[in-house]
Amino acid sequence: MSSIRDVARLAGVSVATVSRALSMPEKVSSDSLAKVHTAIAQVGYKPNMLARNFRSARSYAVVVLVPDIANPFYSLFIRALEDRAQQKGYAVLLGDTRGTTEREIEYIRRVETRLADGIIQLRPSSEKSQNNIPSDIPCVNACGCEYTTGPAIRIDNRSAAKTMVDYLISLGHRRIGVISGLKDNPHTVDRLEGYKDAIRGAGIEFDRDLIAEGDFTMWSGLNAAFQFCNMKNRPTAIFSMNDEMAIGAMQTLKAQGIRIPEDMSVTGFDDIAYAKYCDPSLTTISQPAEEMGKMAMDMLLRIIEGEPLSQTECILPTEFIIRKSTAPVKA
Amino acid sequence: MSSIRDVARLAGVSVATVSRALSMPEKVSSDSLAKVHTAIAQVGYKPNMLARNFRSARSYAVVVLVPDIANPFYSLFIRALEDRAQQKGYAVLLGDTRGTTEREIEYIRRVETRLADGIIQLRPSSEKSQNNIPSDIPCVNACGCEYTTGPAIRIDNRSAAKTMVDYLISLGHRRIGVISGLKDNPHTVDRLEGYKDAIRGAGIEFDRDLIAEGDFTMWSGLNAAFQFCNMKNRPTAIFSMNDEMAIGAMQTLKAQGIRIPEDMSVTGFDDIAYAKYCDPSLTTISQPAEEMGKMAMDMLLRIIEGEPLSQTECILPTEFIIRKSTAPVKA
Repeated sequence: MSSIRDVARLAGVSVATVSRALSMPEKVSSDSLAKVHTAIAQVGYKPNMLARNFRSARSYAVVVLVPDIANPFYSLFIRALEDRAQQKGYAVLLGDTRGTTEREIEYIRRVETRLADGIIQLRPSSEKSQNNIPSDIPCVNACGCEYTTGPAIRIDNRSAAKTMVDYLISLGHRRIGVISGLKDNPHTVDRLEGYKDAIRGAGIEFDRDLIAEGDFTMWSGLNAAFQFCNMKNRPTAIFSMNDEMAIGAMQTLKAQGIRIPEDMSVTGFDDIAYAKYCDPSLTTISQPAEEMGKMAMDMLLRIIEGEPLSQTECILPTEFIIRKSTAPVKA
Repeated sequence: MSSIRDVARLAGVSVATVSRALSMPEKVSSDSLAKVHTAIAQVGYKPNMLARNFRSARSYAVVVLVPDIANPFYSLFIRALEDRAQQKGYAVLLGDTRGTTEREIEYIRRVETRLADGIIQLRPSSEKSQNNIPSDIPCVNACGCEYTTGPAIRIDNRSAAKTMVDYLISLGHRRIGVISGLKDNPHTVDRLEGYKDAIRGAGIEFDRDLIAEGDFTMWSGLNAAFQFCNMKNRPTAIFSMNDEMAIGAMQTLKAQGIRIPEDMSVTGFDDIAYAKYCDPSLTTISQPAEEMGKMAMDMLLRIIEGEPLSQTECILPTEFIIRKSTAPVKA
């Protein structure tokens, strides 16, 4: 195995220069830098980058805190985050918190002990919800909501939800059920406001019985839908706060002999891959997850590098996608 | 911010002892270790773990090479791998290769330069397929196949495929179409052997026209299914080599007015979450992804720690799950 001395000899520079070229390239002339890199390639030298990390007190890694990696919505974000990090020479440490505070704190500790340089948070947090990340840790929320504290990339959840419910109202629906996430989840809060905006605008009274709580999993959507099936005065449409719960709900409705969309329209949120493939295909809201992931990573790396941010909150546009799970209300 | 000196003072030991307790705890008496940890907690000391990594020439991180994180089958593995790594004090670096050799090599380089201690490979590789990982790098394939080179955790893909096709034959099907992965993919090779074993056992001749090639995505399954729809002598059942392609194929069949399972049975492989929720629910093979992920991580950490392996290949049992996408052939 070749050593740093072989590189120095071939490049015609000192060992100290090779070392500096690896750990603090900005302090080496571009001429020397080029010679060193050529020599590294020629002798096949594999530098111990832990030395660079130690000297620079940087790990060149960022933690991605994700509530559940098995949720396909998050995997779209993670793919984009990882791609951008890779381009910039950073690694992504996976922090699957499984929705627990304990695991979130363990990962935050990695940053505090220098094993990561910053955090991308995919769990939405607001002033009212718990934020475990100390303010001196570089962090960007890539999946924010209204009132996210600190730098955030987000969509306008409230107006996207309003668009969807407005559409259902335009199809003649007046009794519109909601399958929500856990009630304190900031996404739930924002999207419920959008629902209320829409029905208020149409002069429809808010009916608490039309809200069924889920937790963003398919299984919870399947269960929540029973609440509507068993009602005397059933809703004619369901606004589900994500696609997975909508897909779960569709199974319950079909099992009860309720036809979609003839008897009941169903809508989702997120546009995961399965939204196109479920039967009927799902009318939903598409989030630009790839763009959001890239912007969040760029923002985080600026914070880590100590560069000023031109803005600390970016709100990206969503896309409203009409498929086959929605139809005009039956006469 | 508290320093290592504060910890040493409170614990009544030397700074060197605190430093050793953090980087080489096995060289410190359990009595001193306890005093140091109590003192760390009391003064709220955040050690710079990059110093430990540099001294021990270890990063306490492993790379997970995954062909596509958006595939829900892999996310089940990753969740299990991450959970086990976390328990053992290791971080997981995400290496989404997008199926390219270039990205795989970039991640392997992280291990060569000490930024990771080993690799969990989720891409199946065999003697015949390309393996980019040098043999001196600790590596375990968590998703192996027959003839995987090096330590591997796997299922018996061939016999699982045979079980599925045997079942279709037992329902009276004789013309059984296959939606395969890319033809050189080792999982494709193994599962196709299982298909051939089953039809040979039933005295059915192999018909190349009944094999449609996909690439394990839903979209490829959707396209592959057209090959069968347009046949004069259509198959009465489709054995898809994963669930996603089966779900894609079901959309094509339905659009062509082919009823599942009355006109055509469809089977999958993997048992991803959606297999239960698609319509009809999918008959499939379940892999113990969680168990496989844990075993692979344990095996890798043994290799990294220089402990002997009792076995270098573990074959785990699969589960055969009958749902509603299969039925006896029409009389």
